[in-house]
Amino acid sequence: MAMKVAVYRREHFNAAHRLHNPDWDEAKNYKVFGKCNNPHYHGHNYELEVKLVGEPDPETGYVMDLKILSDIIQEDVLEKFDHKNLNLDVEAFKNLNPTAENIVVVIYNLLRPKIDPAYELQVRLYETPRNFVEYPA
Amino acid sequence: MAMKVAVYRREHFNAAHRLHNPDWDEAKNYKVFGKCNNPHYHGHNYELEVKLVGEPDPETGYVMDLKILSDIIQEDVLEKFDHKNLNLDVEAFKNLNPTAENIVVVIYNLLRPKIDPAYELQVRLYETPRNFVEYPA
Amino acid sequence: MAMKVAVYRREHFNAAHRLHNPDWDEAKNYKVFGKCNNPHYHGHNYELEVKLVGEPDPETGYVMDLKILSDIIQEDVLEKFDHKNLNLDVEAFKNLNPTAENIVVVIYNLLRPKIDPAYELQVRLYETPRNFVEYPA
Amino acid sequence: MAMKVAVYRREHFNAAHRLHNPDWDEAKNYKVFGKCNNPHYHGHNYELEVKLVGEPDPETGYVMDLKILSDIIQEDVLEKFDHKNLNLDVEAFKNLNPTAENIVVVIYNLLRPKIDPAYELQVRLYETPRNFVEYPA
Amino acid sequence: MAMKVAVYRREHFNAAHRLHNPDWDEAKNYKVFGKCNNPHYHGHNYELEVKLVGEPDPETGYVMDLKILSDIIQEDVLEKFDHKNLNLDVEAFKNLNPTAENIVVVIYNLLRPKIDPAYELQVRLYETPRNFVEYPA
Amino acid sequence: MAMKVAVYRREHFNAAHRLHNPDWDEAKNYKVFGKCNNPHYHGHNYELEVKLVGEPDPETGYVMDLKILSDIIQEDVLEKFDHKNLNLDVEAFKNLNPTAENIVVVIYNLLRPKIDPAYELQVRLYETPRNFVEYPA
Repeated sequence: MAMKVAVYRREHFNAAHRLHNPDWDEAKNYKVFGKCNNPHYHGHNYELEVKLVGEPDPETGYVMDLKILSDIIQEDVLEKFDHKNLNLDVEAFKNLNPTAENIVVVIYNLLRPKIDPAYELQVRLYETPRNFVEYPA
Repeated sequence: MAMKVAVYRREHFNAAHRLHNPDWDEAKNYKVFGKCNNPHYHGHNYELEVKLVGEPDPETGYVMDLKILSDIIQEDVLEKFDHKNLNLDVEAFKNLNPTAENIVVVIYNLLRPKIDPAYELQVRLYETPRNFVEYPA
Repeated sequence: MAMKVAVYRREHFNAAHRLHNPDWDEAKNYKVFGKCNNPHYHGHNYELEVKLVGEPDPETGYVMDLKILSDIIQEDVLEKFDHKNLNLDVEAFKNLNPTAENIVVVIYNLLRPKIDPAYELQVRLYETPRNFVEYPA
Repeated sequence: MAMKVAVYRREHFNAAHRLHNPDWDEAKNYKVFGKCNNPHYHGHNYELEVKLVGEPDPETGYVMDLKILSDIIQEDVLEKFDHKNLNLDVEAFKNLNPTAENIVVVIYNLLRPKIDPAYELQVRLYETPRNFVEYPA
Repeated sequence: MAMKVAVYRREHFNAAHRLHNPDWDEAKNYKVFGKCNNPHYHGHNYELEVKLVGEPDPETGYVMDLKILSDIIQEDVLEKFDHKNLNLDVEAFKNLNPTAENIVVVIYNLLRPKIDPAYELQVRLYETPRNFVEYPA
Repeated sequence: MAMKVAVYRREHFNAAHRLHNPDWDEAKNYKVFGKCNNPHYHGHNYELEVKLVGEPDPETGYVMDLKILSDIIQEDVLEKFDHKNLNLDVEAFKNLNPTAENIVVVIYNLLRPKIDPAYELQVRLYETPRNFVEYPA
């Protein structure tokens, strides 16, 4: 009988972004995105929570060594996102609006191939302490 | 294929309440509710977390603009609850004991009709940092 | 040579209150205190931080055993304030408006005689995570 | 129709532990567990969140009185774990490596028989604010 | 005898910035400021704590109505800083490197003329939960 | 005219310890230190806040690069304390009881020679979120 345990690792990164739809004119962008549309960007301290579900290994007592998970997040997400401008510096947002929803899906897609498919994976992203998102829901 | 993302908005309100069952005598009320039964009321800084699940709109990248969600919570919940006495000032608790469980269900029922049925809705309420509730479970 | 160390103990209590000046009419009270003037009260999760400054005892390594400090706060403050209506249940506020400023001074005056005068004493009170006060300044 | 509400109670304990597999030699233990393998132990402020799901009682408005839940956690978990060395002082870890995953399962198994089977039970354990686990997942 | 009480109000804003000294070449800027020198900017959720020291007014029990203090911070700081690029959008940083130290002094200088000189004023600014500054020290 | 700004860096470490005075018998140790006297040790997630006061350098806008301060804390404190048993693994506590008060003084004395004397230095140590100490006071 499977004894599934969830393990979570929390990391953070600081980044600039702006919300903008290039198919819309300036007025509509401002109407929809308000001050988040500032062409000079604004920024956040993002907090990232990565959840894996699996069975603890009987030899280690770990579902996964969280130090190894932390290294994967560091290499595959933080190196690309931390102290960056999401719109200008991150390939995935060249043609994708960096809302929290789109960022969390991009991060999931970066991590999924690096994590053994035996583990369920879920990602939560705090844009501020009062606004956050989770994928898959 | 649906790509469901959860989005969360956190708000707060300050309110007074007391726990009391009018069908019981004073002794039984005190036995069950202890100091929460104080007839002069006590109070809390409630923290409210509202979760919606849906698919991001391809044009905005939003599941729902959290500013709009915040405005709905403000108008339909906080205007009625913030700086109020839940027992005396809030219609829903005229005949309902304002435990955290009952408050969270009332808040859910206030919000559900204001949120597009396409979204799943869940509400979490912190009465203190150590006691909190969630509906639906 | 004195080696002064500060030690802090944090406690909490939940209480109802209203802000009101009985020398003013209703209109002026509402103008000054706004929704904090609600005659039915509202409430808070107060967080209380008590700071003592003194020299560590060479035998124990303690400035003061924080368990003993916690017991003093429990007996002399929390017993009187927790799950109470500050205006109606606490003697000190029978004729004193229970603003955070007045509450913190009252708490200081309750604790000062119970703490050895060799220690400097300072009290901080959080009414919400965004509004807090400290005495003496 | 069932109206299920989740209620959560958060508690904490402070404990020492080390990670170690007695079937491995020192080098392998150090390779896998790193500084967590320190033979002299290290320690944590563990935060424990216990979640119950059930229907609020119409007479009390409680799923379960969280004061009673807190007393159960105190008696069946904290008395055994708080200010202890998990490896040396807690029976369950005499032959089980006290990783967060194993601790959370042990705590679940201690609480499950003390909680009415009508309630679903889930336990979350924070080893640090950045590393935490949940069971069942 | 003066009875001085300190009152604190906490606010937040989200902004982009980069650290850069225009008198230095690119290599020296990168050497000193590292990834904070990214020419495309990065950003933060800044938390701002404003402290006033004064005597409570005997009629209100307030040192200063924190709602009024909040409005002043909103108008004189947040309107200029929130969802902005500090380097490009804020006059004060046209020729001043927006380090946390320089930002906190600028905010103090914006607030000082708006606050009655009878109050002592101190400002604390969190750039991240682990890096923060205070002025005057 | 000096423009003094305070800068703070927060770090953490996990350690085991016990409180014990070898000049006392077991009964007196248990009477004074209670469960903190457990001979098998217990432990904490310590949070460490280091404060420096100085004038911002006009070329960098920094009082001190907090990355450099973080490296000093890492090398001179965390390397010695993190994932250690304070009583057994840290030289300073071979003959000194590792109370929070004594730990904070030891950390101050480790850091003081590594920090330019032009800076004032103060250290705060959280043993738990409710018990913390500061030196010099």
